[in-house]
Amino acid sequence: MMDLENILDSIKGGDEESKARAKNRLDNLAKPLGSLGHLEEIAIKLSGITGKINNPMEKKQLIVMSSDNGIVEEGVSCCPQKITTIQTINMIRGLTGVGVLARFAGADLKVVDIGINDDVDYPGLIKRKIRKGTWNISKGPAMTRDEAVRSIKIGIEMIDEAVKEGVQVVGTGEMGIGNTSTSSAIVMAFTDVDADVVVGKGAGLTEEAYENKKRVIKKALDINKPDKNDPIDVLTKVGGFDIGGMAGCFIGAAYHRLPILIDGLISGAAALLAYKLNPLVTDYMFATHCSAEPGYKLIMEELKLKPMLNLDMRLGEGSGCAISFNILEAANEIITKMATFEEATIVNDFLIDIRQG
Amino acid sequence: MMDLENILDSIKGGDEESKARAKNRLDNLAKPLGSLGHLEEIAIKLSGITGKINNPMEKKQLIVMSSDNGIVEEGVSCCPQKITTIQTINMIRGLTGVGVLARFAGADLKVVDIGINDDVDYPGLIKRKIRKGTWNISKGPAMTRDEAVRSIKIGIEMIDEAVKEGVQVVGTGEMGIGNTSTSSAIVMAFTDVDADVVVGKGAGLTEEAYENKKRVIKKALDINKPDKNDPIDVLTKVGGFDIGGMAGCFIGAAYHRLPILIDGLISGAAALLAYKLNPLVTDYMFATHCSAEPGYKLIMEELKLKPMLNLDMRLGEGSGCAISFNILEAANEIITKMATFEEATIVNDFLIDIRQG
Repeated sequence: MMDLENILDSIKGGDEESKARAKNRLDNLAKPLGSLGHLEEIAIKLSGITGKINNPMEKKQLIVMSSDNGIVEEGVSCCPQKITTIQTINMIRGLTGVGVLARFAGADLKVVDIGINDDVDYPGLIKRKIRKGTWNISKGPAMTRDEAVRSIKIGIEMIDEAVKEGVQVVGTGEMGIGNTSTSSAIVMAFTDVDADVVVGKGAGLTEEAYENKKRVIKKALDINKPDKNDPIDVLTKVGGFDIGGMAGCFIGAAYHRLPILIDGLISGAAALLAYKLNPLVTDYMFATHCSAEPGYKLIMEELKLKPMLNLDMRLGEGSGCAISFNILEAANEIITKMATFEEATIVNDFLIDIRQG
Repeated sequence: MMDLENILDSIKGGDEESKARAKNRLDNLAKPLGSLGHLEEIAIKLSGITGKINNPMEKKQLIVMSSDNGIVEEGVSCCPQKITTIQTINMIRGLTGVGVLARFAGADLKVVDIGINDDVDYPGLIKRKIRKGTWNISKGPAMTRDEAVRSIKIGIEMIDEAVKEGVQVVGTGEMGIGNTSTSSAIVMAFTDVDADVVVGKGAGLTEEAYENKKRVIKKALDINKPDKNDPIDVLTKVGGFDIGGMAGCFIGAAYHRLPILIDGLISGAAALLAYKLNPLVTDYMFATHCSAEPGYKLIMEELKLKPMLNLDMRLGEGSGCAISFNILEAANEIITKMATFEEATIVNDFLIDIRQG
């Protein structure tokens, strides 16, 4: 594998010529100009990614990064840490939200242990454990700089594998108790926005626990002073292995010119991190659902992306990606199967020029 | 067929006991409470409609009402009226937006000529023509009161047929040049909100044509003075056969306890009309996409519904419904296939109580 710097330097933006061809095709379809809105933008973006007008997505994959976070010892989550292990296994068993929805979407689910705080062994689990959970970021850095780079590389390797398997679109997900805290810390580090705006109640905290969560995250930033101009430093100081892994997926997808979906807050924080490493990665990203977590909106503003779904979901796991594959496929149906004006006007052997009347 | 009054009187709301059972099941699934947001609300609503927890949607149908509007002679649309005929045929041929998307969704597409201004004959077209287009509403009523009731009954009959065919979920769509004007007039009649707020540029008007459109719609309301306390009068005075037909679909779906999807502005105006005839119909309705047409937001406020998709679409035809079937199905997957806390905690023969830690 090339080193991370070389991979980042090799990333190019979406192909403007292919995008123009796709736009031209859409503008010639028998419908008012631009009337399919975001669906048209999706079809254009897909063309920019692959260089093709027709982008079938028969082979879909959802990559889930599972890891634990030392910060949970500060009481930032209402769930016990053991849930990371349990739900990771339940995902593979197809019983969690994303387990059910990935199967429904016809997507392969790849579950990666990138740092669960347990010795987990389950058929199908992909073992890439860096360490049994990060350190407590309210007391010091989450990980070493080497570990941060390694987490990103694990994500890139997952995409390398997916490309070898012929995957045509990838979704990102995660499981890790405490990771809305690390994600919020990353968003705050990059945007300088206050905890009161960024931090949400996660999976359902009391008011007291919510105040504590904000205090702990602020403390993590005060103690670690992550350098926002050095994204690896931000990941090292206040991130998580799951976030590093997903950031690697976004980078790998841009490198391999593969469309990739952002899920909610945590996946979004990873996308933001990847964007800070190379802004061109957004040309490969699709935002899926408008997460109920407040930091999510800030991420979308930074990445200049618009989510497709409005479902008030805050489960994570990649559940929003699983539902959104279908919308990308619908966009591809539109651009490949709708009639052009010329085709549409030949009805019962008449030729009527729709545009002239 | 019973008369309309009897059908309206027979409609009951969603079954609260079934909804409570569905909510209880969702609350016991291995996820933070309510974390699947709108997906959970959809699953609960479906249970209220059918009385069952499991609501498979293998048999989906999209009903499109096609008709012409006399108001087009006022220059309210940038498209020639002939487009209604052409695109109605192209729908059946599977070449328009909804033609492509319905096939992709695995939904049967039923296209009804309820008032096209042409002698149309095409294999598969369902012929229920009331008349060749409505009269010009800026000069007088769109139709007679009898015709208004008849248009609604045609919609109800379409749902009767769908139920006989075993359809489990229905989407609504339309084709009819000029129907954003009639829809806007209906929204204005019911809400008393001004044309500047309600009326949009439809399929792409110039500024001048847009001002004309608002002027014409205002004139239609001034001349006809529809009685907002008499929804049939509103339909008679400023509606369209397509809107009456779709309103009938919503009423028929509520009567038969069948889930039914709202598309964009025009379908929404029909939903509003049905709601004014009996407010309980909203218990059977699902809003699909947030239309780019301004009147749409007002309709959602009146109906107290939240659209699922955020795709800036303004094509109509039922295209938003076609994409949304998949989300209803995803909601049903969640409630039927996710593990409960009890099931989720039995991993490798361990029993761990997630909630206690």
